[in-house]
This record gives sequence, structure tokens and C-alpha cells, in this order.
Amino acid sequence: MALDYFFTPRSIAVLGASNDSMKLGYEVFKNLKEYGDKVYPVNIKDEEVQGVKAYKNVKDIPDEVDLAVIIVPKRFVKQSVIDCGEKGVKGIIVITAGFGEIGAEGKKEEKELVEIAHKYGMRIIGPNCVGIMNTHNRMNASFVMNAVKGSVAFISQSGALGAGIVYKTIKENIGFSKFISVGNMADVDFADLMEALADDEESKAIALYIEGVKDGKRFMEVAKRVSKKKPIIALKAGKSESGARAASSHTGSLAGSYAIYDAAFNQSGILVANSIDEMLSMARAFTQPLPKGKNVAIMTNAGGPGVLTADAIDKHGLKLANLEEETMRKLREFLPPMAAVKNPVDMIASARGEDYYKTAKLLLEDPNVDMLIAICVVPTFAGMTPTEHAEGVIRAMKEVNNGKPVLGLFMAGYVSEKAKEVLEKEGIPAYERPEDVGIAAYALAKFSEINEE
Amino acid sequence: MALDYFFTPRSIAVLGASNDSMKLGYEVFKNLKEYGDKVYPVNIKDEEVQGVKAYKNVKDIPDEVDLAVIIVPKRFVKQSVIDCGEKGVKGIIVITAGFGEIGAEGKKEEKELVEIAHKYGMRIIGPNCVGIMNTHNRMNASFVMNAVKGSVAFISQSGALGAGIVYKTIKENIGFSKFISVGNMADVDFADLMEALADDEESKAIALYIEGVKDGKRFMEVAKRVSKKKPIIALKAGKSESGARAASSHTGSLAGSYAIYDAAFNQSGILVANSIDEMLSMARAFTQPLPKGKNVAIMTNAGGPGVLTADAIDKHGLKLANLEEETMRKLREFLPPMAAVKNPVDMIASARGEDYYKTAKLLLEDPNVDMLIAICVVPTFAGMTPTEHAEGVIRAMKEVNNGKPVLGLFMAGYVSEKAKEVLEKEGIPAYERPEDVGIAAYALAKFSEINEE
Repeated sequence: MALDYFFTPRSIAVLGASNDSMKLGYEVFKNLKEYGDKVYPVNIKDEEVQGVKAYKNVKDIPDEVDLAVIIVPKRFVKQSVIDCGEKGVKGIIVITAGFGEIGAEGKKEEKELVEIAHKYGMRIIGPNCVGIMNTHNRMNASFVMNAVKGSVAFISQSGALGAGIVYKTIKENIGFSKFISVGNMADVDFADLMEALADDEESKAIALYIEGVKDGKRFMEVAKRVSKKKPIIALKAGKSESGARAASSHTGSLAGSYAIYDAAFNQSGILVANSIDEMLSMARAFTQPLPKGKNVAIMTNAGGPGVLTADAIDKHGLKLANLEEETMRKLREFLPPMAAVKNPVDMIASARGEDYYKTAKLLLEDPNVDMLIAICVVPTFAGMTPTEHAEGVIRAMKEVNNGKPVLGLFMAGYVSEKAKEVLEKEGIPAYERPEDVGIAAYALAKFSEINEE
Repeated sequence: MALDYFFTPRSIAVLGASNDSMKLGYEVFKNLKEYGDKVYPVNIKDEEVQGVKAYKNVKDIPDEVDLAVIIVPKRFVKQSVIDCGEKGVKGIIVITAGFGEIGAEGKKEEKELVEIAHKYGMRIIGPNCVGIMNTHNRMNASFVMNAVKGSVAFISQSGALGAGIVYKTIKENIGFSKFISVGNMADVDFADLMEALADDEESKAIALYIEGVKDGKRFMEVAKRVSKKKPIIALKAGKSESGARAASSHTGSLAGSYAIYDAAFNQSGILVANSIDEMLSMARAFTQPLPKGKNVAIMTNAGGPGVLTADAIDKHGLKLANLEEETMRKLREFLPPMAAVKNPVDMIASARGEDYYKTAKLLLEDPNVDMLIAICVVPTFAGMTPTEHAEGVIRAMKEVNNGKPVLGLFMAGYVSEKAKEVLEKEGIPAYERPEDVGIAAYALAKFSEINEE
């Protein structure tokens, strides 16, 4: 894939790697050490950094260097870029801040960095970013904790928010394939990354947190092309007038009217998220196949969550599937009399793993059903955990194997953590909130529609 | 308060307390044992239940019994209620299911239970519920794990969803004062409970999960009265047509057009939530005083979350406060040049606890500010945790002490857990998502408006 030297470099130099645990150069090198022995610290003073032989200059490294992470004080950044160029480095991540985000002078300086880089055939991510990660080869070129391994490539224009989201996803066990903090996007921008990630098999979807796009035309052109094969989900901050004003003072660039962005996203086949959770919920859905239509079957062991989920899918223009008479008849055969066999199918609290299996199988086999949402709240029988319910759904999905997407909604905090892991391992995204699974179902249906056009 | 025998009973009998860990009667008695030695198991076979002397009949208990929890097989429920009446019990929680929710016959049976109870001057919660909790005296008369202690009284018409929400809040460290699963509401209903909780000092707000209200007139009349002094937040399932159909098949009663509910809620001074998280976020806000207006100051250590929060408050009709020139001048004195002193105040990533203290103080003292949202994403300095930031905000709030509400938004998963605890301990609700803090600010402003009318 393009830009592969950023994500699968053969070797990495860290300019500004540090022994001082209060410095970011300490964290970055510590994280990168996990990548293996082809990570070289560059430090002007110390002989060793964190037990690894250090070099005074990137040019002293007795090995080719694909990727350089620059985290030196601002006044040394320019010379560092020149040194990298002379060394034959391919990609540079500039974490150091104090460039375009502080005004005209900084903008000029970062432009100069890019000119130098391009002269040597190098590309730059940053400056003013928290770094990047590839969870699939455990490369963490950032000062943020390792994200959970997953299927979503997440690109964030805000470094701090991006880091906050990584921490949030660690807590919620939501996985990323790549995390890229793009900083000021002086060189590599959303368009470059979308293009590169289009070919990345580890990324099933691309999620963008956007504050302002500079080259709108190219962004749209690339997005249009990429979204034909891979879903792109965008969260644009500054939707309201207040927010837009706040965004423009933050990024220095005009955030622009949200209506323009909204129209551009729609024209480019980008799915629009209105919150961080919507963005993540949609992006996570794409480990599942695309549905052929908008008819959703819901199965649940409690009425309330079924109703809330019906509300959630309705909000996004999806429909409750009309089940075949035959399906309902067969459900009636083994479900208790108090169960509801009409969609949403309420198997009631007594439902066990076997009921989940049989019900999921019948629903997936029903020709009127395009996708299935399997809900489980905390089972009310003492000693029962929802893991057997998750396993029932998986068994049905594997047996039927007819390419209909299945989404999970397991709503019991710690009690359902294990069940959610079991589902995720089989590629079934497991949500905790009706609105999250609702928008995930929408994302699958919408992207299926986009793909058909 | 009314119905106090449900929440602060002097003694409790558990009819159907069990030694069999696969039975709900086991869980309920195990949970209730924590309440002290005035909890008596009633079991027709065993001499002892979980190490406690058991009685064959509630009438054999050599003590007065305020509250009885009934969890015997359905065929024994009626006689159990009669026994409780003869014993002089005041309140009964019927966990046993199989009544109104299964149809006309069950409805007749539960009506009979209520008639018997009323004859003896008793009230019934349930049947078909998971029980109730009072976290402030550690009374857990349910088969659900202990909820976190907090300020929100949560009443759920869906037992399983209610339990799921309790588990969710345990994971997210969100507290309840009371949890009440009302089941079929054969007797005690939303209106009774709102009335009782109006006088409960431990409950700062009442949150309702509603599927269908039976006596709409009385519900509104009570809500109107109660909402003059205590906020009521309602989440109504079955908002969409699909959802409404699902709800009506679930509860057996007609869910009714959502538009009617919406109008009724608004007329009764009830705040309307559209999701579980909105309901919880709004209800949690009321540990803070009410604002005098709608002008919000936002302080943050990263631009992105400030923008998303500005979007969130704008969505609900709140405004970014126009800061006084003097405030901005003073902020400029100590914040770095790259900081934004215009609202949202972006103190940038270098901000420490002291900056949070000074900024919060200036913003709270600004006459144009009605409330403050303090945001912290993960601090980008190695070795820094957001706890000092939380402490800075608390110090400012205490020093200024001018009755303006303060809300927290700490967005870094595990990294900010401790900081959030520190804030919550001082009554500052700490959220994790911009939309949650946005709707919390709205709830405070809206309830302030309702109160003024």
C-alpha cells in the first residue's frame, strides 16, 4: 500500500528519544521498543537511551532508516528533517508543535519543512501530532498507550482528542487497525491517508475526526473513489455556529459552514457521524457482510431493549422485517407461551443459549430478513452468564452462513464483557447501547446502497 | 416519606428465600442479608437459609415485619399475600411473574392480589419485577448486584432493562439513590413513587424508564406537582411506530402515540430523554445548583473536545458566554501565547492543575457566565494525570462559591477514572462524552426555567 513506510517500516529512528521519563521522547521510544530491534534512538547527549545504544545523528545509524519520528525541540526540527533527507529516510512523523497552529510565521516554517522533505522524496505526517500506530504489527510511534487491535483505521485531526478516544476505546475494548494523528497536515492529509488505507486489508473501515479540510476538492475526489470499495465515516466538529467559531480559533483554518461539509460528505459517499460513539459504532460494523436490504430482525430476552432498538433502527429509516408465518410457527414450537414470536422476537428471560441458537437460525433463514440484531440483557436466572447466548448466535450464524449480517447488543456492563469478547472474536460487533447498534445497522445498509449505485 | 416501609423497613421477610444457588430466592436473600439481622427467610422446607434460621410461614416470625419480598412459585403467591396481611406487613414486593403480562387471566389474578393487600392496608410493588434497592442504607431487595451509591432515583418499567442499566452504571461508576423495578404496576405505580421520592433528600432527581402509563391523568397531575421541586427525567420507549408496536406486544397495554406522551411530559414539567445515556446524564446533573441563565463557559486543554462540546450545548439551545474583556485579559496573563482566551477557553496541552484553578476561578467570576464546563483530555505531558486538573476546578468552585453550576468532561478512559471520582465526590458530575455533558447542562438550565415559571 502507499505510504507503507509509515505503517510497516523496516527500521525506525527516534530523533529526541529520551531517558527522562517526564519527556514525550521517553514515552515514544518506550512504545516503539516493542516493535523490535530495528528501532534506533537518536540523542545528542546520551550514549544509550533506555538501554539501547543511541546515535548523535540519524546519519550515524549503521542501517537504512525507513521512518523517522521527530520529537526534538522546535529549533532543531528543520535540521533534523535535512539530516533525515541526507540519510535517505522515507517517512517522517513530526510530533513537535509550534508550527502552523500558532500563526503565519509557524505556517511558513512548516511549509519549509515540507519543501525540504519533498526535495528528498520524503513525506511528513504532522507537525503537532501525537503520532501513529499500527496495531497489527504492534508499531506504536506515538506517546499514547497501545490501542486495542481491531478493524477500524482512525484518523484524527485533533491529537489530544484522538488520544482521548484511544484511551476510551481501550476501556471499552473497541479495536483499531491504525491510529493516525495527522496534526497540522502540512503534507500528508486525509486524502493521502484514505487513498493508502483503501488498500489496507486490516482496515475494514476508515473513521475520520475532522475539524477543517484544506483542499476540499481533492478530499472529495479521493473520498468518492475510496468509498466505492471501503466505508468512510466522518465526524465533523464545529457543526453548530458556536462550534464552528470555536473550531476556527482552534485550527487556525476556517471550519466552514457545516452544511457545505454535510453536502460534500453525502456526495462523496461518506457516512456522517454526529458523535464519537456514532463514528465508532458505524465503523466497527464492517467486520460483517453487507445486507441486501433494510429489513431487520430483532431477537431479545427482554422487551424493553427490543423496543428501544426498534426505535433506533426506525430513526435511521430501517424497518422491522415482517417474518414469514412459517418462521413464527417454528418459533412458537419451542419458545414459552409468554414469548412474542412477532418481530422483535422476545424470547423472554428464560431464554438459554439453545434458544438463541434456534431463534437466530430461524430468523437468518427467513427470506424477509436482511440482517439480525441479537440482544441480551442480563439473564435473570441465577448462575447464568450471557456467554452461552453469544455462542448460540455464533453457532447459528456459522451454520446458516448465508451472508446476512449479525450485530450484537449485550447490555449488562461487566456481566456481558466475556460474551462481547466471544462475539467480537467471530467478527460480530457487540454493542452496549440500542442507539449504537441502530446506527451500526444503518451504516451497513447505507453503505450497501452506496455500493450498488 | 410516603412508602417509607419499602425503602427503610425495620424488618424484612423473604418468602421463598432459598439455599439453592440456582434460584432467584437465593440471590435476593443473599443481597438482603447485608441489610442486617432483621431480615428473615421464610422457607417451607428448610430449617435454615444461608445460615439464618428460617420460618415456615411469615406469621411465625417473632418480630414485626414491615416489608415482605415474595418470590415463591406463582401458585403460592395469593396465600402468601394473605399471610402477610394477617401478619401486619406494610409493603410487599412481588417478584414472581406470570400475572398481568401473560393476559386477561393473569390480570384478574393480580387485581385480586391488590384487593387483598388493600383490605389489609398493604401496598404492592410488582408483580413481575426484579425488586428494589436503597443504596443509602444498603438495602438490596432484588436479585441484581448492588448499584453504586448516588443521587438519582431510577424507576424502571422493564425489569431486565433496569437490571442491565444497573450493571452498566456499576461499570461506568454512575450512582443511584434508589432503584425500583415496578413490574406490572398492579398497585404502586409511577405516580405513587414520584410523590414519595419528592420528599427523599437522598434523591436529587427522578429518572423514569417508561413503556406505557396506565392512569395518564394522575401521572400528569402528580408529575406537575413534583417537578416544581424535583426534576423528573423520562425515557419513553416506543417512540417510533415500530417501537410502539413492539412495546404494545411487550407490556400488553397500548403504548400510545409518542406525540401524546411528549406533549404530556412537556406539560408536566418532565424533561424528556431520548436514550438511556441522556436519561442518566441529565439526572446526574442535579447534584449541582441551578444556573441563572443559558450562558455556558467552556474550558479545555484541547481544542477538539471544546468544539464538540460547543456543538452539543448549541444543539440544546444553550449559548457560549461572551466573556468580559477583563476576564480575557487576565487569562492572557498566565496562559501561553498559543492558548485561546475566547470562550471556549483552550488552555492547550501544557495546562496544569494550577491553570485549571485560575481559569475556572476567572470564568466563574465572570458576570456573563451562568455555568461552567471543565474539559480535560489526556494530558500530553508524561507522568501527568488529570487528577490535579480536577482538583484545580474543585478549588476554584469552592473559593468562588457563587452558586454557579460546574460540570466535568474528562475524556480519557481509565486514565481519567481517578479524576472523575475526585470530582464526583465534590458533587461535580463528571462525564465522558461531549453530548452527555451538553444535555446535562441543558437539563440544569431547563429545570431552572421550569422552576421560575
